[in-house]
Amino acid sequence: MNKQTTAILLAECPDQPGIIAKVTQFLSENHGNIVDLEQHVDTADKHFFMRVEWQLDHFSIRRERIHQAFYEQVGSTLKMNWHIAFSDVKPRLALFVSQHGHCLFDILSRYQSGEWHVDIPLIISNHKNYQALAEEAGIEFHHLPITAENKQQQEQTQLALLAEHQIDTIVLARYMQILSADFIDHYPHQIINIHHSFLPAFPGAKPYHSAHERGVKIIGATSHYVTTELDAGPIIEQDIVRIRHNDNIEDLKRKGRDNEKIVLSRAIRHHLQHEVLVYKNRCIVFD
Amino acid sequence: MNKQTTAILLAECPDQPGIIAKVTQFLSENHGNIVDLEQHVDTADKHFFMRVEWQLDHFSIRRERIHQAFYEQVGSTLKMNWHIAFSDVKPRLALFVSQHGHCLFDILSRYQSGEWHVDIPLIISNHKNYQALAEEAGIEFHHLPITAENKQQQEQTQLALLAEHQIDTIVLARYMQILSADFIDHYPHQIINIHHSFLPAFPGAKPYHSAHERGVKIIGATSHYVTTELDAGPIIEQDIVRIRHNDNIEDLKRKGRDNEKIVLSRAIRHHLQHEVLVYKNRCIVFD
Amino acid sequence: MNKQTTAILLAECPDQPGIIAKVTQFLSENHGNIVDLEQHVDTADKHFFMRVEWQLDHFSIRRERIHQAFYEQVGSTLKMNWHIAFSDVKPRLALFVSQHGHCLFDILSRYQSGEWHVDIPLIISNHKNYQALAEEAGIEFHHLPITAENKQQQEQTQLALLAEHQIDTIVLARYMQILSADFIDHYPHQIINIHHSFLPAFPGAKPYHSAHERGVKIIGATSHYVTTELDAGPIIEQDIVRIRHNDNIEDLKRKGRDNEKIVLSRAIRHHLQHEVLVYKNRCIVFD
Amino acid sequence: MNKQTTAILLAECPDQPGIIAKVTQFLSENHGNIVDLEQHVDTADKHFFMRVEWQLDHFSIRRERIHQAFYEQVGSTLKMNWHIAFSDVKPRLALFVSQHGHCLFDILSRYQSGEWHVDIPLIISNHKNYQALAEEAGIEFHHLPITAENKQQQEQTQLALLAEHQIDTIVLARYMQILSADFIDHYPHQIINIHHSFLPAFPGAKPYHSAHERGVKIIGATSHYVTTELDAGPIIEQDIVRIRHNDNIEDLKRKGRDNEKIVLSRAIRHHLQHEVLVYKNRCIVFD
Repeated sequence: MNKQTTAILLAECPDQPGIIAKVTQFLSENHGNIVDLEQHVDTADKHFFMRVEWQLDHFSIRRERIHQAFYEQVGSTLKMNWHIAFSDVKPRLALFVSQHGHCLFDILSRYQSGEWHVDIPLIISNHKNYQALAEEAGIEFHHLPITAENKQQQEQTQLALLAEHQIDTIVLARYMQILSADFIDHYPHQIINIHHSFLPAFPGAKPYHSAHERGVKIIGATSHYVTTELDAGPIIEQDIVRIRHNDNIEDLKRKGRDNEKIVLSRAIRHHLQHEVLVYKNRCIVFD
Repeated sequence: MNKQTTAILLAECPDQPGIIAKVTQFLSENHGNIVDLEQHVDTADKHFFMRVEWQLDHFSIRRERIHQAFYEQVGSTLKMNWHIAFSDVKPRLALFVSQHGHCLFDILSRYQSGEWHVDIPLIISNHKNYQALAEEAGIEFHHLPITAENKQQQEQTQLALLAEHQIDTIVLARYMQILSADFIDHYPHQIINIHHSFLPAFPGAKPYHSAHERGVKIIGATSHYVTTELDAGPIIEQDIVRIRHNDNIEDLKRKGRDNEKIVLSRAIRHHLQHEVLVYKNRCIVFD
Repeated sequence: MNKQTTAILLAECPDQPGIIAKVTQFLSENHGNIVDLEQHVDTADKHFFMRVEWQLDHFSIRRERIHQAFYEQVGSTLKMNWHIAFSDVKPRLALFVSQHGHCLFDILSRYQSGEWHVDIPLIISNHKNYQALAEEAGIEFHHLPITAENKQQQEQTQLALLAEHQIDTIVLARYMQILSADFIDHYPHQIINIHHSFLPAFPGAKPYHSAHERGVKIIGATSHYVTTELDAGPIIEQDIVRIRHNDNIEDLKRKGRDNEKIVLSRAIRHHLQHEVLVYKNRCIVFD
Repeated sequence: MNKQTTAILLAECPDQPGIIAKVTQFLSENHGNIVDLEQHVDTADKHFFMRVEWQLDHFSIRRERIHQAFYEQVGSTLKMNWHIAFSDVKPRLALFVSQHGHCLFDILSRYQSGEWHVDIPLIISNHKNYQALAEEAGIEFHHLPITAENKQQQEQTQLALLAEHQIDTIVLARYMQILSADFIDHYPHQIINIHHSFLPAFPGAKPYHSAHERGVKIIGATSHYVTTELDAGPIIEQDIVRIRHNDNIEDLKRKGRDNEKIVLSRAIRHHLQHEVLVYKNRCIVFD
């Protein structure tokens, strides 16, 4: 595996001829060797999207000047929105969890095996179930139970903890509380949720009960960025499992758990690899 | 393959001990060799479902008396609803189609290769596109265009044609007209539709447009029995295809077509094999 | 969920008329309420297979006499092989593991959440990586490194530990040692392995390298009972993941891990639920 | 949909910095608007692959000079192999078929609905089964039965027919004859086959029988370019279907047919869209 440090540009702008040439010429002239480039044009919206990753070793622009240089030579001429990340900067993740532990276990097993390039310094829960687990993994655990009365105050505590730990990304690993619009606004497209249905079917509570009631032959899971409208944020990843008439609700939950944890972990990885661009409530995922 | 004639019993009743013993003893005492038996208990509803298939060769009850004998010795004592079919009786299918031909082509290719044990004497369409195709396949074709004004009358014509051809089962192979409640009542759980989404998501018109708009990562197809509530009938079969951000609506339609035709054909087969029981708007499919 | 104690019969015999009637009559006469019954006839081999589960509450035969009663009234007349298990007896599992931990983590998370009805008192490894993890989970851990010289002796130690802990089933959770025929003979169809390919493709070492070399578009995982022929035992469960040309060997391993752990856990569950019958090196899985 | 004429470049060369910049600058300077660009670097082999599609409307190089201009300005400096296709040139396909018609029906239904941008002027078969079907579709049909004695001569007749119809691509739609090395050499990576297993498992004859015998839980289909080594050519597309123990060989064949026809049609489409590059017996598929 190539362990050289790379820069990753995620960019979008109105489509016009010559965008790729301009970007790649900028990189080429400055001795940036491209290791991956993907682009997408939404022909209906006439909008351009791009992810390009290049090696920094011989890149002639110093890291802290890349943004400005790119702005001057490329971005400003194309009405472009862009973001540049560096592969040697570890994203910092916080996990929010309630009483279902399957996603948490799955994430921690990847964390401990080093599958992801990430730091997870913080777990917040409205229950105490996974305090010991968190501590064994060396992760700070905060028990913040939520009631209608204390919700606003607890969210302030949560925000303070997130700031203190310099968290980039929040993962709701089956966290059964609805976040306030104010909270969500602090982390736009940085809060990843897993919902246990193939959205837009069965939003809200108890989707497996609804699935059983409707008699569907497949159940799903959807990982999406949290927006203020419940279960309506941009979808990062979805998958399904087939079920039969002899699967009762407990079976749906059991089969669903395996699907949920895999779908959530795939979505987290896409996010951590800087592969996701959000546009008009849809995700472009450069996988 | 076993080509011996068999009888197929589909039955449901309130659950109680000894049902299978009673049914299998009835068959055993009358020298009916069981080739397949499947049962299901809905433990929440305490309801019992069964499909059993047995050879008629040495069965000591004559075919025309089986129903009465079963009633006397089994069914009447168990508050059972049941249906008995015979493997040498070919179901008679009518196809309703509009302008999309992929499901029609797929069905006809199976018909012509003898994959299904079925007769298809009739195709009805509100367009003329597939008249020649129908005639090449030796199937009577009727062009019955539908307007708001003539709908009721055309449905009467359709019903007359269906009766004339002694049709058991109607397949809506992407037929883009909504049937009236009166029409549907003539064929309870005998009209099979294919809807181009994973219901209950995206019911109604233009599901691929809605799927693209919502930014889902999977698209689906659902085959269900038609009931008077649109796209809400009991689901026989569903499946999905993965899509990417670079799939536009035309791509969704194209990938969707392959999924639709396979899902519909699987559902038709389950129906023709007498594998489907409907209970509380859900399908038990003994596959 | 129904928590009443049940008995589970797994049986196979040459096919003949009346088998199900005989079995269900035996249960019915003794007041055993059937909660699940599945049968299968291999028409090519003319062989019959069955799984039936019934409640013991009002069953008139005492548990320790069921086997003898069944032998006298049913089994002996049908040349039947059968096994009876009880739902309140917890199977006892031992895990064998090497350096890859993803299957181990997945199994332990299910164990700790109580997903399976099982006891796991013993983990054996030829490496020390997961000693702490085992101890945190309260499971006895033995580090038994294997060399060509000590293999026979270490297997004797393993067998002694398995006997001491009254182990029923051994799960090789990516255990990278080949067991001797002598060892395998102690646990016929009781050792479950996960192989990281869709067998029979890519048996043996480094299947992901072979898959990459061959340029396949799907990679698979296969869980099977271990027999003396390497990777050739009866298959319990298989599944696949799609890959693309831009997935390198590390990507294959990563995507494969998710598939492996799910496939292995499904196979373990089938086994623990007494759903698997082996016949002619094939598994009948009554799921 | 965008119906403007485009050019498609498929190219591969040893990796080095600046390739994309060079190609896109060539296009940009000559006013070629890129509508799609995908690249891939095989980091193990240090080899670069690319597919780029651009509009010809304002492109300043005349069509017949593009190849030479690209050679001079880009290709010759990079040790590149490349191919340029034009979207308004319809590929010409010949179908080879034997007695199984499901792939043929599926292809013809797409052909007649205009799903693909292709001409199919020729069907060759060693049986007469589909002569009428071919003629209804307006396609020339040649019945060329093959024996050990006449094979060489019949292949000469086939080659003459292919030349006469200016065929680019041959699709073996379940053609049950093995082509000679000499024949294959005339159409390198232009003959597409469908094999009814997930290769490399079950090559050669009767894969469904082998799959049943081995007791696999999935069956597959593989579409690949034909090379002189049987069933060992570069894989374009694969997919699988799950099966159960109660599926006999006839069921495997039936479920397999649906899989085969979809996999083959996906592969054909990739080929017709100029999305496939072959390198070291592996396909890069830019989908």
